[in-house]
Amino acid sequence: MRYGYRGRLLYINLTERKIEVNELSESIVKQYLLGSGLGIKILLDNFDKDLSPLDPDAPMLFISGLLTGTPVPTASKLSVCLRSPLTGIWDESTVGGDFGAFLKFAGYDGIYITGKAEKPVYIFISKDEVKIEDATDLWGKDTYATNDILKEKYGADIKVASIGPAGENLVKIASINIEGRVGRAAGRGGPGAVMGSKNLKAIVVTGRDVLPLYDKKGLMESIKNLVPQIKSGTESLTLFGTVGGMVKVDKTGDLPVKNFYGSLFTEGAAKTSGMAIAEEYEVKNYRCYACPIACGKHLVRKKGFPEELEIAGPEYETGAGFGALILNDDLETIVWANDLCNRLGLDTISTSMVIAFAMELSEKGLIDEDIPWGDGEKILSLIEDIAYRRELGDTLAEGTRKASQEIGHGAEEYSIDVKGLELPMHDPRAFTSMAINYATGNRGGCHLESLSYYAEQGLKLPGIKMKESYDPHSDEGKAELAVNMQNYMNVYNALGLCKFLIRGNIGITHLAEWLKLATGIEFTPDELLKTGERLFNLKRVYNVSLGISRKDDLLPPRIMTWAREEGGAKGVIPHIGKMLNEYYKLRGWSEEGLPVSCLAYKKEKQ
Amino acid sequence: MRYGYRGRLLYINLTERKIEVNELSESIVKQYLLGSGLGIKILLDNFDKDLSPLDPDAPMLFISGLLTGTPVPTASKLSVCLRSPLTGIWDESTVGGDFGAFLKFAGYDGIYITGKAEKPVYIFISKDEVKIEDATDLWGKDTYATNDILKEKYGADIKVASIGPAGENLVKIASINIEGRVGRAAGRGGPGAVMGSKNLKAIVVTGRDVLPLYDKKGLMESIKNLVPQIKSGTESLTLFGTVGGMVKVDKTGDLPVKNFYGSLFTEGAAKTSGMAIAEEYEVKNYRCYACPIACGKHLVRKKGFPEELEIAGPEYETGAGFGALILNDDLETIVWANDLCNRLGLDTISTSMVIAFAMELSEKGLIDEDIPWGDGEKILSLIEDIAYRRELGDTLAEGTRKASQEIGHGAEEYSIDVKGLELPMHDPRAFTSMAINYATGNRGGCHLESLSYYAEQGLKLPGIKMKESYDPHSDEGKAELAVNMQNYMNVYNALGLCKFLIRGNIGITHLAEWLKLATGIEFTPDELLKTGERLFNLKRVYNVSLGISRKDDLLPPRIMTWAREEGGAKGVIPHIGKMLNEYYKLRGWSEEGLPVSCLAYKKEKQ
Repeated sequence: MRYGYRGRLLYINLTERKIEVNELSESIVKQYLLGSGLGIKILLDNFDKDLSPLDPDAPMLFISGLLTGTPVPTASKLSVCLRSPLTGIWDESTVGGDFGAFLKFAGYDGIYITGKAEKPVYIFISKDEVKIEDATDLWGKDTYATNDILKEKYGADIKVASIGPAGENLVKIASINIEGRVGRAAGRGGPGAVMGSKNLKAIVVTGRDVLPLYDKKGLMESIKNLVPQIKSGTESLTLFGTVGGMVKVDKTGDLPVKNFYGSLFTEGAAKTSGMAIAEEYEVKNYRCYACPIACGKHLVRKKGFPEELEIAGPEYETGAGFGALILNDDLETIVWANDLCNRLGLDTISTSMVIAFAMELSEKGLIDEDIPWGDGEKILSLIEDIAYRRELGDTLAEGTRKASQEIGHGAEEYSIDVKGLELPMHDPRAFTSMAINYATGNRGGCHLESLSYYAEQGLKLPGIKMKESYDPHSDEGKAELAVNMQNYMNVYNALGLCKFLIRGNIGITHLAEWLKLATGIEFTPDELLKTGERLFNLKRVYNVSLGISRKDDLLPPRIMTWAREEGGAKGVIPHIGKMLNEYYKLRGWSEEGLPVSCLAYKKEKQ
Repeated sequence: MRYGYRGRLLYINLTERKIEVNELSESIVKQYLLGSGLGIKILLDNFDKDLSPLDPDAPMLFISGLLTGTPVPTASKLSVCLRSPLTGIWDESTVGGDFGAFLKFAGYDGIYITGKAEKPVYIFISKDEVKIEDATDLWGKDTYATNDILKEKYGADIKVASIGPAGENLVKIASINIEGRVGRAAGRGGPGAVMGSKNLKAIVVTGRDVLPLYDKKGLMESIKNLVPQIKSGTESLTLFGTVGGMVKVDKTGDLPVKNFYGSLFTEGAAKTSGMAIAEEYEVKNYRCYACPIACGKHLVRKKGFPEELEIAGPEYETGAGFGALILNDDLETIVWANDLCNRLGLDTISTSMVIAFAMELSEKGLIDEDIPWGDGEKILSLIEDIAYRRELGDTLAEGTRKASQEIGHGAEEYSIDVKGLELPMHDPRAFTSMAINYATGNRGGCHLESLSYYAEQGLKLPGIKMKESYDPHSDEGKAELAVNMQNYMNVYNALGLCKFLIRGNIGITHLAEWLKLATGIEFTPDELLKTGERLFNLKRVYNVSLGISRKDDLLPPRIMTWAREEGGAKGVIPHIGKMLNEYYKLRGWSEEGLPVSCLAYKKEKQ
């Protein structure tokens, strides 16, 4: 008897239109969990470095977390695992909503997809049947239309993951949209382009089979006890969403201004904050599966205007990216830029970053186009140009790193990325643990790989080793913090939990407890953390096999050598060299950054 | 009336076999001095970024310093200025000996060469004639034979600059040899390849016209007063050559071990030091023109062996490069590696660095060849393979950066270079001012652009602003020190002086005094230093025009993020980010590293 998961994976080859179901052994689940944990295991088993990310034979995985679909708070996440067409290395793109839970309700933990359909198709998955259906009529449609049409066909009880024109056009920063206009996205690393390269427009899941639980009563009791704590730590998220903290973030120097060149956005931050949204719009909360927080925001109506809206409000990353980052303080532009990205299937972080990059190139005269900072019309038209690969948009569709190499003449200077992934909206000069986190994150410049900046602000997590307190601007102890948080965070995507749980002080001890109650699988907190470490190292193995080493574990020159001139992070430049040196030692990596576990894994494979 | 220089430049177009003499105005000399100062002025005037360094039309300049050929102590230097085929950016390669003085005695301050001869040629320059002569018979000969044959033809009174097989084969780390087997070399940046690309085997100069001096009596008096001070500061150089300090250098952690990965060479350092040479060889001193130091060492005989030798002893850079850097403690291997490089026309720094690079790649399994650390036979055969571009040597002939890109699979990690120029044998982890100096040096990783590590050890120079004392391992004040020393050192190559003068505590005040007495050209010490700053910035302008910016002002990952594990520099990692941030501010550069003077210069040109 399995609890909390199905032990079944779908293997679909689109070239051959072949559908298989493979069993998943308990020992594999115990070793790798599910989500991106099983993801790295499967992608390493099928590793072929000569297979380019957009090759028809390149595999892509959709796997729900081990707890996804159970009542464990926030257990909604699905990991999309693949070799990123943007960075050429490991990518796990995580998404909430209900899709991951519904996949399990349909009877499967994950889907392994290879091949390329002859014509556009979508995959339909239910308890009774799995089929590959023609999607010729959907091709070219945006994600909202795709979602609506499929809902009309199958009824409201389905969940849809789809790509928009960006993914179809192999835009390297294309996302996968979940559940249409008000949903969520698997954004980072260009997974939408991989779906596009397979002629796969959408995946539809439907199901109602509730997951059996190992100790339902005990689990519900534990949840009941902990939900108040989670709610109290995330109250501001519930009230104003992730974008609520904009003004505070600006004050600490964490908010990127003008492509990470500037220092403060001041009034602009207030004008683009969650409070400003609440003032200007009628807002409704959105919650992912099993989530007690409900940080999502739907915009129902602009106050004073009659039309009803049905669009998602901007998240913090989006608000900062289409706001401070590009010197735009017009909230409406942010709202519609966000909507356009969701509709066309573009990652809002990378899209705002390539636009910031283009604005700086324009200012510096490195491109002919006139793209003034903060120009709302230009922002919206550029988003379309990127999705449809028109003119400059065709170059920007490659992401800042490749675009900068194509443009040349020193444009590389303005590509603010790590390993090809554009940085998100947290400046490591404000919280220096993020410098080492970005430098070593397995998918490149990613804040979610450790979220350690919370710890630098005093957050404590049961079972996670931390110093009594941290100076956000010092390098002291930050390498260790990043290691510990990366290990911890690697458990999240494997279990399918939302990382905002940490704001409710949920530690590894809670995770081990829930895991036991939901699935019967026993880990001590330390064992679970060790598993996180192993998963992190396995992802590193994947990257090392693709040529990643110490030389890539650095930050863009602007972050590494340029200090903000005012504000909360004034004068701070993280000592990345010192931290990386410490980090390698703590990780037990070779001087090139090869994890010892690499060798262990290779041996095991022989 | 001109004092100390001729005011005449030769312009030679080898394609058209055209020889012209151009006058040099006094105001230009006052603005740019000569040597690499006039070099950057002329190369900027003739700048064409689309002209690749080995294009027949690419210009190369041989210019004596403003004081070269006068009795000013060490006034022997000639600058070879060009766009480096190794790095693609500014290169000034400086050489002592008598060639520079003889060029002036022949009636010219410099030679501007463009075009490519149809067949191999050499240029003959005397007071009476300048001619382009057939060198078909010399082509393929090494630099010693070339020197000998030309001496046989023209008599002992000539000085020869020639390339060996490496330059002919367009090896990117090919040097220009001066005066054959016991002479000197313009080594860095591959100037030999540019001569080779022009089918220019050699330049012969002869002349006897002594330079008129503005105030001969005053100058001789000043020299007489200062020579004892110079001699006393450089006594160890006179006794044991530049390689004398090997053991001390090892102790401070300044000596690179195992491609900058190791920490200490201990007994190896003693076995490869100047003292060891003096014990094992009969040694004779060699002095460049007007030099009271005579740091050069000729090996006359290996003690206990009957044969006479006539070869140059290894300099510090060579001894360290073919010693500690590649874990070779066999002195004889170093001696013959040095001789082979001189003979074949290879830069000993870059050659030892590409060999260290190859040894590390071999150890890591990134190349198939078996090249054990410290293997004497392999070292010597690799040197030949590089010069003749055989097998792996053909790849290594491109320098470590391009070779690493060609080899791929993370080989870039082991290329220890800045801007494509392999680092010399001073580890910036021992003296952190060298980190910022390497990062910003106009020809790339070059210790001569500031020599600031002397100041970190307590050296004081009249007229050069310094702190009372420096902690060699701290970043405090190092950006400012590097700026001041770079400005100061830029005066040296323009005047044609040897930088070892600083070990005799010669400051800018002395330089201004000698300049006045020798040429009548008046500068306050500050004005002269300002000129150095302007020249440094103009070279930066040249590089910026070729795409160099902040992104290039960094160090290789191994230096930037890896600490030595024992020895004098144990645990030190320079904070390059912090220093670079300070440095840009001190230089008044834009955030991308564009000097303000760039704009001034561009305006002036319009």
